[in-house]
Amino acid sequence: MTDPMTSADGAAAEPRHPQQSPEKAAVGTSRRDLLRGALLGGVGGLVVGAAGGSVAGRTLISEDVTDTIDLSAKYPFYGQRYQGGVATEPQRHCVFATFRFAPSAGPKDLQLLLARWSAAIAVLQDGRTVGAVEPTSALQPPRDTGEAYELGPASLTVTLGLGPSVFGDRFGLARFKPALFSDLPALNGDFLDPKYTGGDLSLQACADDPQVSYHAFRNLSRIGRGVVIPYWTVLGFGRASAGPGQQTPRMLLGFKDGTRNIKTDDELNRFVWIDRSDQPWLDGGTYQVVRKIRMLLETWDADRVGDQQQIFGRDKLEGAPLTGTKEFDTPDFAARDAEGEFVIKPLAHIALVAPENNGGIMIKRRSYSYTDGLAADGSLDAGLLFVSYQNDPQLFIRMQNRLGANDLLNEYIRHIGSGIFVVPPAPEEGHYIGEALFA
Amino acid sequence: MTDPMTSADGAAAEPRHPQQSPEKAAVGTSRRDLLRGALLGGVGGLVVGAAGGSVAGRTLISEDVTDTIDLSAKYPFYGQRYQGGVATEPQRHCVFATFRFAPSAGPKDLQLLLARWSAAIAVLQDGRTVGAVEPTSALQPPRDTGEAYELGPASLTVTLGLGPSVFGDRFGLARFKPALFSDLPALNGDFLDPKYTGGDLSLQACADDPQVSYHAFRNLSRIGRGVVIPYWTVLGFGRASAGPGQQTPRMLLGFKDGTRNIKTDDELNRFVWIDRSDQPWLDGGTYQVVRKIRMLLETWDADRVGDQQQIFGRDKLEGAPLTGTKEFDTPDFAARDAEGEFVIKPLAHIALVAPENNGGIMIKRRSYSYTDGLAADGSLDAGLLFVSYQNDPQLFIRMQNRLGANDLLNEYIRHIGSGIFVVPPAPEEGHYIGEALFA
Repeated sequence: MTDPMTSADGAAAEPRHPQQSPEKAAVGTSRRDLLRGALLGGVGGLVVGAAGGSVAGRTLISEDVTDTIDLSAKYPFYGQRYQGGVATEPQRHCVFATFRFAPSAGPKDLQLLLARWSAAIAVLQDGRTVGAVEPTSALQPPRDTGEAYELGPASLTVTLGLGPSVFGDRFGLARFKPALFSDLPALNGDFLDPKYTGGDLSLQACADDPQVSYHAFRNLSRIGRGVVIPYWTVLGFGRASAGPGQQTPRMLLGFKDGTRNIKTDDELNRFVWIDRSDQPWLDGGTYQVVRKIRMLLETWDADRVGDQQQIFGRDKLEGAPLTGTKEFDTPDFAARDAEGEFVIKPLAHIALVAPENNGGIMIKRRSYSYTDGLAADGSLDAGLLFVSYQNDPQLFIRMQNRLGANDLLNEYIRHIGSGIFVVPPAPEEGHYIGEALFA
Repeated sequence: MTDPMTSADGAAAEPRHPQQSPEKAAVGTSRRDLLRGALLGGVGGLVVGAAGGSVAGRTLISEDVTDTIDLSAKYPFYGQRYQGGVATEPQRHCVFATFRFAPSAGPKDLQLLLARWSAAIAVLQDGRTVGAVEPTSALQPPRDTGEAYELGPASLTVTLGLGPSVFGDRFGLARFKPALFSDLPALNGDFLDPKYTGGDLSLQACADDPQVSYHAFRNLSRIGRGVVIPYWTVLGFGRASAGPGQQTPRMLLGFKDGTRNIKTDDELNRFVWIDRSDQPWLDGGTYQVVRKIRMLLETWDADRVGDQQQIFGRDKLEGAPLTGTKEFDTPDFAARDAEGEFVIKPLAHIALVAPENNGGIMIKRRSYSYTDGLAADGSLDAGLLFVSYQNDPQLFIRMQNRLGANDLLNEYIRHIGSGIFVVPPAPEEGHYIGEALFA
């Protein structure tokens, strides 16, 4: 079989998987499977007419089923115990932004900002604009910048986090600081760039349309002007962590990411949601850790696949642990091969992070791919926007210190950005995030 | 009515449009309208069960209809007269990349690269990998980097362009250079940064999944290693130019972009496709111009909407010309108001680019929004990846020189990147793009 990597003729290269036809390989999410039975020949046929009819040369694989993104879906903001964007099924796009306080910002400014942001987030998640795009008086600037007008809510969630500095002397809020919360210490494997590190507040705006995400970030930044200054932002795509019943997406190293992620309410309650803390106002909240992880893609791409699989401890295509055959098989970290060597190396990525090897602990990962274009040397500047949620920052710190010291993957990644924030619970209608701080 | 811009309570802000309920405002694409009649209460209800059933708190606006993206849709590469990505209905995401030749690259290297890229593009557009993700021998690196495995073709098109340098002395191809083709001259309004300007070859990879676009760019870059070096790239989102029957999307200034874009085959034949040129091998090709246009969003957002509308010559929400009431009303550039002033200012954006004021000429625009995060001063670093196609570079040059000298919009935008490439026609099966150069 010819291959464009090595041959110059126009013939086709290998299909995606030797055991699957390309058509079969193109389907498989559980959403699609759920829709398949009901819609076969229905929506599929209609879409050919609607989307493909006027476009010459477009063909559809007839036995495939449309993967749907419902841009009218929305999440309520008020009356939830938890903020969205934590346990929420990962949306397809994300703008993650941190902010620094303006030098003049005082307690009243912070209070007003949290109230305004909360009101605006509620409106944005409802698919509305944060004020008129065309004010009645044409002499006014638009209240809303307008680029998401008519795009629909697109399952937007905006998650607001407070950095450790919120609880310093500046705002008189030190008494509300939970004992567990402080800046992340220096961690094994840190290559942090100050440009992408820290922040006083964070906003994570995830949606199924990137323009909806960007619009939320942009308009919330506008509302914050004079009080906060955007500090660093990442545009994430191709969510790399899956929710219940979802096919596990792949990050840019080509491996699935999220197979053993937190999925059940029980796991969320044990490891993610803060409950009965020393700060009752935080019950229903969580700690957010963000890491901008550059991947050295050219180096990785030159590594042989057998080594890549040893590094992860998983098979690349199926995502099965090297001791199993299916993605969701439980890894057997004690299994040895004929030579007496561990099948999954003790320093493989999945071995280091496995609950079995970490006293049973888990964290909720909610990551996205990103690209910043090219580095100065012409190499691909891309990687993973890692975001995790846990009810104790130590869960992340201990895990990352193990990984940073030992992970076979470290040769191929660099942790260049970092931040930690506490995410308060969601407010009731008529209230706002963090209101308890100003009671 | 309260407003998060000015009030601190938790009440809702203004709906998207004073004359519309938010629910109404969330629908409106013609795709949706086509689906609406057939699917009302059908797909909508199903999706609640499939996508929303397991997610607490998710609600759907029941009268809305699912906007569908069919990730199994694909475009053929061979046997088309034209390359994809020009007249193709704009996909939702795009990676645009330029490349420079390695110092050692000679004619044979260029020929082999065009052949390999063509073969790989054919395979990628078919939704397959460019070789095995898991080679039979685990001692080999993966042929394909794997991150798009199982994602489907997602309507991918990759458009390959040749820069003016291809026709210099280096490759012995000067005799194939069309008389019309050379580097863009300095243009009015240029603020070009060398980091984003020029290039020997270009790849435009557009798809309805950003990971499919990025995967195509990355794997084509891999195939080119040793011959070409990636030079500058842009990740585009939220396509800003519409095809036939599509709702016109909005760019980050909040206005619709593409209302009067080229849409018919007759317009494509007159203004886009090269025919009977001095270089017969180029018939069926076109010229590609790319401009990275930064938008000064904070400044724009502070401008009153009446002024914004004068700058464009259109109403912001509906997109109607200021002399009309509906988006597709033909602008009346002669109309004057009661004071005798032109209703659409002669230097308004739509007046300067209108065919009526340019000897009837048009260009095909196929633009996307982009963000590079934040500028050094903390301002939003974002704008428009402008890509146009035309059968004579002068069509763009004359239009941009008029705009650059006169456009009221210039106060708010900066052309920071630029490139021009000629896009050869698509090959027959068993052949490759640009093969005529090596006959």
